[in-house]
Amino acid sequence: MGAGHPSQAECRRGVRAALAGLPTGSLALAAVSGGADSLALAAALAAEAPSHEVTAGAIIVDHQMQEESADVALLAAQHCADLGLGPVAVVPTLVTASGEGLEAAAREARYAALAETAAAMGEDHPAHLVLLGHTRDDQAEQVLLGLARGSGARSLAGMAVLVVREGTPFARPLLHLPRATTRQACEEWGLTPWEDPMNSDRAYARVRARQALADLEGDLGPGIAEALVRSADLLRDDADLLDDLAEQATPDDDPAGVPVGALAELAPALRSRVWRRLLLRSGAPAGDLTAGHVAACDRLVTDWHGQGPLHLPGDLRVRRDRDRVHISRAPGGQ
Amino acid sequence: MGAGHPSQAECRRGVRAALAGLPTGSLALAAVSGGADSLALAAALAAEAPSHEVTAGAIIVDHQMQEESADVALLAAQHCADLGLGPVAVVPTLVTASGEGLEAAAREARYAALAETAAAMGEDHPAHLVLLGHTRDDQAEQVLLGLARGSGARSLAGMAVLVVREGTPFARPLLHLPRATTRQACEEWGLTPWEDPMNSDRAYARVRARQALADLEGDLGPGIAEALVRSADLLRDDADLLDDLAEQATPDDDPAGVPVGALAELAPALRSRVWRRLLLRSGAPAGDLTAGHVAACDRLVTDWHGQGPLHLPGDLRVRRDRDRVHISRAPGGQ
Repeated sequence: MGAGHPSQAECRRGVRAALAGLPTGSLALAAVSGGADSLALAAALAAEAPSHEVTAGAIIVDHQMQEESADVALLAAQHCADLGLGPVAVVPTLVTASGEGLEAAAREARYAALAETAAAMGEDHPAHLVLLGHTRDDQAEQVLLGLARGSGARSLAGMAVLVVREGTPFARPLLHLPRATTRQACEEWGLTPWEDPMNSDRAYARVRARQALADLEGDLGPGIAEALVRSADLLRDDADLLDDLAEQATPDDDPAGVPVGALAELAPALRSRVWRRLLLRSGAPAGDLTAGHVAACDRLVTDWHGQGPLHLPGDLRVRRDRDRVHISRAPGGQ
Repeated sequence: MGAGHPSQAECRRGVRAALAGLPTGSLALAAVSGGADSLALAAALAAEAPSHEVTAGAIIVDHQMQEESADVALLAAQHCADLGLGPVAVVPTLVTASGEGLEAAAREARYAALAETAAAMGEDHPAHLVLLGHTRDDQAEQVLLGLARGSGARSLAGMAVLVVREGTPFARPLLHLPRATTRQACEEWGLTPWEDPMNSDRAYARVRARQALADLEGDLGPGIAEALVRSADLLRDDADLLDDLAEQATPDDDPAGVPVGALAELAPALRSRVWRRLLLRSGAPAGDLTAGHVAACDRLVTDWHGQGPLHLPGDLRVRRDRDRVHISRAPGGQ
């Protein structure tokens, strides 16, 4: 298996860095859909594993969202086996959602299935790691979707190179590479990637983001994807620090309520994050909590003129009484 | 002068909030180009000034960048006088730059001319304030241009509602309104705005950003401008706090150099900002300093393997010697 072409070398270099810290005998698993990104990832993992003395396998998640999905999954598994990867697991998942929520539900189901399968496959290994095939273009699209929502730094910061979910470490060794590199590498390795028909269905936000990125390149010149990713990297550092500071600044749970003074003294950037924490702690569903909700809560501190209680997602009721703020489940709630 | 139409009422409400804090007898000056945004601003100022007991005037900056610019400036001045504004000053500026740098140079020259003129006109007044006609669309375009550069939070945070430049306070009372509102308001007030031919010349970044915004609306759905502005608001809070923290964390000037330990202990988000401060303090030109330069400096702390001195804009030389970092003007610099 050669690494002659620069595209192959770049994919291998990314995987090499991800494997560098693993102890000998670890299990490294590529998450493979059969598309160009994950096939290039699988090939690079197969090429790099021997010199790192790790066992290299793959997990194929079958979403069952398309008629031919079982065939696609089996073909991807065959590709992985041909590359010399083993063990290879095919995991069916069931996604119950529709419309805009479908993509988020599918993503959650995929991560859960990957973590669960990796944990089971990694039983006899000192450590295990799941590799994801996200590229720089995925990252740029992610940032654009965050912008379209009008979100803050954490949302605009995109995906991290390394993240731990449900106890399983996930790495994204190709996150700095353009999608074109993985396509080229597949060609060099003689691999035929699966073309997901969902990739041209504008019903999906991800597909619209891809078009938006192309249009921005046309309007503002080439290099937009790199620029978005550079911004995301800087914002990720910001969000990490601000989340840490907010964690420290969040008052302990107190049946007497949250003292207004403790909130009022915080900088706005921290106060909005502390509010979010307080609301999540009281049971607000993370996905339903908007910047608008947080701003309304904040006005109980910064613009207090006796306004009535706020009603927030998760049946939460937030009200101010003198110098305390009370967050409770509304009557009828849990 | 009526405020019957909602577009007029919205412009007036913005100006009213900006005038609210001014002492009686203050001088409030609208910066007017003759375009829809600044004409609506001038009309709203003329309508609001009497009940606030402030003197309402205008400044028209003549860039002299187009043949007809003197005529455009005189016509704008006439509009302002017709609206009942006075004093009205027309200030010619001379911009010496070309290409991409032209827009930045013109902007700097405009702010300098406005501040200088306002200071002179405000001599007999207890306080003065310059009002700028930027709208929500300008803000969204500004954020897009920051993204295209791959900048951090400060750059993506766009324009502030209130800022002090060279001792003069500048307010942007229309920053929350879409451009369509100022156009509509001009029509209601019977004002014919000047259409700047530069607004359709794709040689200008601002014009390309306008197109990019329109394309994003098409790709990701309506509401993109609001979303970008909402993100910018959140990022502005973040940038304000992080800049404060970085200011506190920046080591004092020391001929013995900056101790590496003082930098190493900082979170990445602060360290990059402290590096920027150290480099600016040593004479790096702000406009030439990129995130790449800062990252290279940072590697002297986080990835030290004996690398040689760095050469940065402003003839700066940055080198590490044991546990100190030295920033100096390179030989031949100054």
